[in-house]
Amino acid sequence: MKKLLIAVLCVSGCTYTVNLDETELIDLSHPLEQGIPVYPGGKDFKLTRLTAEDAGYYANSFEMGEHTGTHIDAPVHFFKGRTSVDQISPWKLVTKCYVIKVDHEVKTHDYQIGATYIERWETQIGRIEPGSVVLFYTGWQARWREKDKYLNKGEDGQLHFPGLSKEAAELLRARKVAGVGIDTLSVDPGNSKDFAVHKLLHEAGIYHVENLNNLDRLPSKGALIIVSPLPIRGGSGAPCRVFAAVPRGTR
Amino acid sequence: MKKLLIAVLCVSGCTYTVNLDETELIDLSHPLEQGIPVYPGGKDFKLTRLTAEDAGYYANSFEMGEHTGTHIDAPVHFFKGRTSVDQISPWKLVTKCYVIKVDHEVKTHDYQIGATYIERWETQIGRIEPGSVVLFYTGWQARWREKDKYLNKGEDGQLHFPGLSKEAAELLRARKVAGVGIDTLSVDPGNSKDFAVHKLLHEAGIYHVENLNNLDRLPSKGALIIVSPLPIRGGSGAPCRVFAAVPRGTR
Repeated sequence: MKKLLIAVLCVSGCTYTVNLDETELIDLSHPLEQGIPVYPGGKDFKLTRLTAEDAGYYANSFEMGEHTGTHIDAPVHFFKGRTSVDQISPWKLVTKCYVIKVDHEVKTHDYQIGATYIERWETQIGRIEPGSVVLFYTGWQARWREKDKYLNKGEDGQLHFPGLSKEAAELLRARKVAGVGIDTLSVDPGNSKDFAVHKLLHEAGIYHVENLNNLDRLPSKGALIIVSPLPIRGGSGAPCRVFAAVPRGTR
Repeated sequence: MKKLLIAVLCVSGCTYTVNLDETELIDLSHPLEQGIPVYPGGKDFKLTRLTAEDAGYYANSFEMGEHTGTHIDAPVHFFKGRTSVDQISPWKLVTKCYVIKVDHEVKTHDYQIGATYIERWETQIGRIEPGSVVLFYTGWQARWREKDKYLNKGEDGQLHFPGLSKEAAELLRARKVAGVGIDTLSVDPGNSKDFAVHKLLHEAGIYHVENLNNLDRLPSKGALIIVSPLPIRGGSGAPCRVFAAVPRGTR
């Protein structure tokens, strides 16, 4: 099979080698289809056939929310005046990424990823570099095809799924990351009422990728992420295809 | 600025160097907004605000056709039983690309790119390799913001813009390319009635990217293309973000 040799030279001038041998391309997006989970207030994905069976060709139209499916939140989503989705620099979308696996830490559905957990991860893997994307694997991606389990609405009327703590968001701001991703509906925990993480990250110009898939297949560091949102003019976000280029043997 | 060092080792095992120095990331997609040109029978892009001005956050929904904006045609679009958009291998989407500039050849609006032109190009630039994407720059991208000029409907009721000849499609099939792209509404010329190019390419499992932008900024060879369609389950195509990673100094 074809091989892709990739290396990235980071902002500071230090050499950051993603791969000098073989690379695997992994799809981090969920397929778009009717019935996928959508955050309350959002818009469901709906496909409509445009052509008759005997038209000689086949085509559909569709409708959905900017925040439906695997998607990006642009900083303007929760912070007025910040960048819209079409204005995010390609260099923030194609960059190195880290994966912090917290799936074994998720003891309750309201679990919040702490700053201390990230700092402990850094002592083992290395300090998070500016301009990178940090992905959190909570294990929630496995629930995607069971909408109710993915939303996990409790008897209290609130959603319950893991997310970041405010302190974690503050740490990621300090690290000057380009983006933050997660395999749940939101970077804030499901039961958040103030969307503090959204606000803290967007204020700093940091974007989010939500509803990611296959994060368990990525190494802690060494992958290149390619985030490709539809360039909706002035959009608050957009569905996006996400690929990771992963050097083989770096799980 | 950040630098991306990329090299691609092609299927046959020969080394194909995209870049061993610096790389520029170029956006090949047109922004999505209301009023963009759409092929007759397709569906316009429409954005609808979901949130009130004082909601505390900003979000929209949208509707569009699978073939609206910069988009991919999956082989199933014109050939029943062939690959749908979600099934296209990532290795066909992230691959080396060639750009054949025919803008100086376009003497009439019904211009067809000939096989002999491509063969002449190959004698200068090199033979088109299997698994690559071949892009055609006709100059039509400059009309994008003037919908009527882009569609260019004549008094005869037909559209008039340049495209590929059947012979060119046959040559590209023989070269076993992964995809073919163009800066017009269709790989077939605007006045085509039989969509012969669509059928010939899709039958061979080759996808198209239509309504591309910024093709004038790419070198004839040496760039890496990243085509990222939304993974619509069973879709005939999808809007896509397209980036090219271009080694500086290779125009």
